[in-house]
Order: sequence, then C-alpha cells, then structure tokens
Amino acid sequence: MAEKVAVIGAGSWGSALASVLADNGQDVRLWTRREDQAEEMNQHHTNEHYLPGFHLPGTVQAFTDLRTCTEDAGYILLVVPAKAVREMMKDLRSFLSEEAVLIHASKGIEPGTSKRISEVMEEELTGTAANHIVVLSGPSHAEEVCEKQPTTVTVSSSHKPSAEKVQGLFMNNYFRVYTNQDIIGVEIGGALKNIIALGIGMTDGLGFGDNAKAAFMTRGLAEISRLGVTLGASPLTFNGLSGLGDLIVTCFSRHSRNRRAGDKLGRGAHLDDVLEEMGMVVEGVRTTKAVHGLAQAQNVEMPITEALYDVLFEGTKPEESVRQLMARERKHEEENMSLLLDPDFQRKWDDTSQGPWTNG
Amino acid sequence: MAEKVAVIGAGSWGSALASVLADNGQDVRLWTRREDQAEEMNQHHTNEHYLPGFHLPGTVQAFTDLRTCTEDAGYILLVVPAKAVREMMKDLRSFLSEEAVLIHASKGIEPGTSKRISEVMEEELTGTAANHIVVLSGPSHAEEVCEKQPTTVTVSSSHKPSAEKVQGLFMNNYFRVYTNQDIIGVEIGGALKNIIALGIGMTDGLGFGDNAKAAFMTRGLAEISRLGVTLGASPLTFNGLSGLGDLIVTCFSRHSRNRRAGDKLGRGAHLDDVLEEMGMVVEGVRTTKAVHGLAQAQNVEMPITEALYDVLFEGTKPEESVRQLMARERKHEEENMSLLLDPDFQRKWDDTSQGPWTNG
Repeated sequence: MAEKVAVIGAGSWGSALASVLADNGQDVRLWTRREDQAEEMNQHHTNEHYLPGFHLPGTVQAFTDLRTCTEDAGYILLVVPAKAVREMMKDLRSFLSEEAVLIHASKGIEPGTSKRISEVMEEELTGTAANHIVVLSGPSHAEEVCEKQPTTVTVSSSHKPSAEKVQGLFMNNYFRVYTNQDIIGVEIGGALKNIIALGIGMTDGLGFGDNAKAAFMTRGLAEISRLGVTLGASPLTFNGLSGLGDLIVTCFSRHSRNRRAGDKLGRGAHLDDVLEEMGMVVEGVRTTKAVHGLAQAQNVEMPITEALYDVLFEGTKPEESVRQLMARERKHEEENMSLLLDPDFQRKWDDTSQGPWTNG
Repeated sequence: MAEKVAVIGAGSWGSALASVLADNGQDVRLWTRREDQAEEMNQHHTNEHYLPGFHLPGTVQAFTDLRTCTEDAGYILLVVPAKAVREMMKDLRSFLSEEAVLIHASKGIEPGTSKRISEVMEEELTGTAANHIVVLSGPSHAEEVCEKQPTTVTVSSSHKPSAEKVQGLFMNNYFRVYTNQDIIGVEIGGALKNIIALGIGMTDGLGFGDNAKAAFMTRGLAEISRLGVTLGASPLTFNGLSGLGDLIVTCFSRHSRNRRAGDKLGRGAHLDDVLEEMGMVVEGVRTTKAVHGLAQAQNVEMPITEALYDVLFEGTKPEESVRQLMARERKHEEENMSLLLDPDFQRKWDDTSQGPWTNG
C-alpha cells in the first residue's frame, strides 16, 4: 500500500529521495519555499537549478504550503540545511501527528549549539514522538540516485521498529537500505566527512598527489572516529557505509560541492568569493566551525579540523596550514590510532557488543 | 653516515625506493636480472619501461650480479613479485650477514602456500636473522614518490629496533615513515587491497557509479579485516596507512595496474589477454587465487574475493558476479561488521592493547 510521505526541502538530495519514493509507488509530496520552483516541478517535472538534466517522476507533487504538504503524512522527511532544521521543526510541530515517523537526511551540525540534527529535532518535539526519529545517511550522490545507479545507505534510529519502517519505505533494487542502531555515529560520520572533503579539495588545489590524499583521508577518518567515540558513538559505525563509505564518495566524486569549494580555497580564493560562486550551501564550512568548538569543549585532538578552521576563519594560508599538519604527525602509527587503545574505548566497545539489537 | 643498501628488484617500486634512499645520501646498489636494464640505469639513469620520463639519482648503481650487489650491505631491500621471494631468498642466503636488516616491500601472498612474504623469508633464514625482517607498506604510488610528492608509509617488524632502523633509513621531508608493530596486519592489508582494486576496476568497466564503488570499498575493507583478524592481526591496523590508506590510493589512482586490469575485465576482456596487454605483474590476480584458498581454509566469509575468483578463474561473467554479490548483502549493517562483534575479536583486542610496544 502506498504510504503518504512529505519531503521537506527540494534541493538535490530531497528531490532525489522523493524520486526513489515515487519509484516505489509511495504518495510523495515535495515542499519548497519557492513558488517558481514548485511550479517548475509540477508543470515540467524538472528541478533545473539543483538537478540539471533530470526528470522527476510525474507522481511527485510540489507544494509551498507546509500544512497542505504534510497533511495525513505518515512520514515526514526533512532535507534542509542543518541551520534551518530547528525553525522548520517549530513550523511543523503544530500539525504533526504523534504517530508520524520523522526522517532526516541532512548532513551537518547545528551552528551555535553544535548539536546533531536528531538532537535538535528531539528538542522541538513533545511526548513519544522522539521514538520516531530516523536518520538516513550513506555514500549517495543525488545525481547517481536519479540515474538509478546502485546505491547503499544506512538508516538509524534509537527505536529499531522506526528504522525498519523507513528501510521498507525506501528499499528497492537500486537503492539498498541497511539499518544501524548507532544514531550518534551515523550522524557524526555524515556531518564530519564534509570537513575532510573540504580538506581533500584543498590538497587538490595545492597540487598534492594521491599518496598524500590517501594519508589525509586515513587520518581524517581516525579524527572523526575519535570525536564520535567521545560523544558516545560506536567506533564500528565509522567503518561502515555512513562513515568510511560516505567519506570515500565525497572525497573522490566530481559531484561533491565541499571538495570543489576546497579546491578553490587551495588555489588561493577567498571563502566569501567561493561561497558566492558556488550558489549552494557548502555544509562543510559551517561544520568545520561547529566541530572546532565541539573538539575544544570535549578536549579531543582534531588536527585536520583545526587546520581547516585556521584557513577558513583565521586567514592562515592553505600551504602553511598543511605544512603545520604534516609537522605534527607522530612517528608511531599506534599513537595516531590512540583512541582505540583508550580504556574508555574498551568500555564503549563492551557496551556496543551487548547492545539491544545484537540478538534482536 | 651513509648506509650500504642493496635493493633487489628494479621495477617501478624498487627503483622509486632506491631513489628515496639515494636522496637521503645512502650508498644504494640496485639489482636487476636484465643486463640491458642495468646498462640503461648506469649510463642514462633512467628505467623507461617501469618509470617512463623519470631520472634516478646519479649515485644509484645498478648490478646484475647478486653477490657484488649485496656485498657488505647492512640493509637488503627485496622488491620482487611475491612468487619470486622464496627463490630469491635461497639465492641470497649464502652471502647474507647475520646482522643485515632484511626489508621487503612486496605486496602479495606466496602462490601455492598462501603465506605472507615475511613468513616465506623467515622460513628461508636461519639463526637470529628472523629478528631483522621489516616490512615497508602504505599508500605510495612509485611515480609520485619519484616526483617527491608527500608520501606516508608504515614499517613493521616483530622486533621494534629493526623497524626503527628502517624508519631512520628512509625518513625525509617528503617520505614520512611510521612504525607499527603488527606485521601480520600490515602485510595482509597491503596484499589484499589489490583484490579490491581489481574489483573496483571491474565495477568501472561495468559502468557503475561512485556510490556503488564507495560501498564496494567499505565492504572490501571489512572483508580484509575479517581475514586479517582471523590470522592474528590487530583490527586497528586495517584503519591505518597500510590498510585503509593503501586501499584508497590503489582504488582511485590512475597509476594502479590492478584497477586498470579490472576495468578491462569489466568490459569483457579475457584474463589472459589482459595480462599479456599489461606487460607487468598484476599482483591482485595471484592474490585473489591465494586468498580464496586461505579464506576457505580459515572458514572466513569473503564475498568480494569469491566473486572476483569466479570471474578470474571460473568463467563467471562480471555482471553476474556483481549481481550475486549485491543479492547476498544483509539487511542490518552490524551483520556486515560482525567480525568486530565476535568474542574472538575481543580477545585479540585485549592482546593488542597490552602489546609489547604500547608502553615502549
């Protein structure tokens, strides 16, 4: 039976996910703030600014009125920039049913509070609705999903039945959905890979080779895991689709906005000019700022994030920042992996292996 | 003081490593079986077949006589195909000093025995010489090393002082060397990434996108780790330079022979034709065969290796093999990560965190 799904946000990823759902026969309504974009999608079934050259399935209906769009929806899928999530939740709250499953597919951290998206959503909800929050993340360029290229993603929730419902909603022969219980790890991996992708773009712009980039990504994943474990995530999650998988696709794809922005920075462009030229949100810039604060507060060593922060917000030259990064590397590889030799990690590990889902 | 180093094997990687050592002021002798190649290197300081367009430092001397090449050498660096290591050790044995440090930088598994290279070397040595075996591995395309692009590698030995000696021998401002105590993990990671690179090439040839490739690499690293941990490696090593780092560089570089071979296979070419056309060793083909046997013997699930084996040696069509691979994926991500939830892993983990080097 078709499920009623409201997709909030008609950027590349929101539109691509709406297409998957429509392909699966769901009743899909797509919300955008802009009248002209809604008209374009309803009349021509295109979204030229965000997905040039693609057609949306004819059954996807676009709306600009939030109440009409979400009416009777069993699923609300939020795909808006991290900084817009809280306002959107406030707007939605009054007409959400307690039973609706709330999915988000935003990859970021709330600016100012440095909170994960699901934390923000939870704070804006009342009653048992928090049980119905599900995150969708993983290595998934929107353009390839529209081409029906094989794609794998992770859905995560603290409430397993909600994750499994969302798995059923999206799963088809080209879009493969796996569940994971570790919502903290899934959100942290998805958000923080944008920092590393910015950095990879920067090394590109500086003319570094593949050897250096591979080392950069390896160190990057270690630093993401380090913060994630401190925040309560399972270290395993960072080796999965939403961690390593998403890091790989973002760092190596011609589609990645974060990587392209980093490339321009590496070539000496100014941040403001880069952001203006891109004309779309570069989530990694905001994430770097939010995570820089978080790392300091948690006392976690994140040399790549710090180097990026210095370039983005402190005016340090990219060459200089990367040189400092290399100079601070240690001589024994185990030291770079030290989070995993930490007694606290051992405890987290034990918790994970006895987690509620393991025998579920 | 300059160290006398004999480099055995003048392929791309042996020649690049000889260049690094010569840059560091070491007294470098490079052995090749072929007279014409030795002449070319001594007269023109080039190695056109393996490193087209590059010049070797003028101080690198080439030899075809093994005894002369290795005379008084404090370090012997073996960079020959995996299948040639045992014979080479037999040839070298009679004139090796007990104090010489033996380094290898071969990324493979011995065909027939399915043994790691350092195991083969150890079997062919007597006395305390086994203490002096060191492995060098990591994300390092030879061409970029010749260009002095920033590169990071791992050196590993069961005997820490030997690893540190080799670290000192190679370390310079563009070639950064880190030690790691887990020789099993370092060798398994370096050898098995070639299987995944072959597979990535194959998905390229079949026209898959970046989303699918990222998932393939993520699953690939999990399967390498699974076998490695079974063989006694620390799971951490696979997240380091010689594991993840090398996997990334091999899967994404235009330089990778394994990836190029896989691409041709994906487009429907026959294995024999591909190997002939390449004109160089494609180590991943032999590794797939060796590891396929090893996985069966150890009862470790390695679906990607199995799928590759079927294409390479059983005549299965690439499309069919990849389709089967996707069909056998499970629904919960944790199951794919199951090695890490294994009680046996927990034990290995404890062993690692109390390893001899941790407080060293």
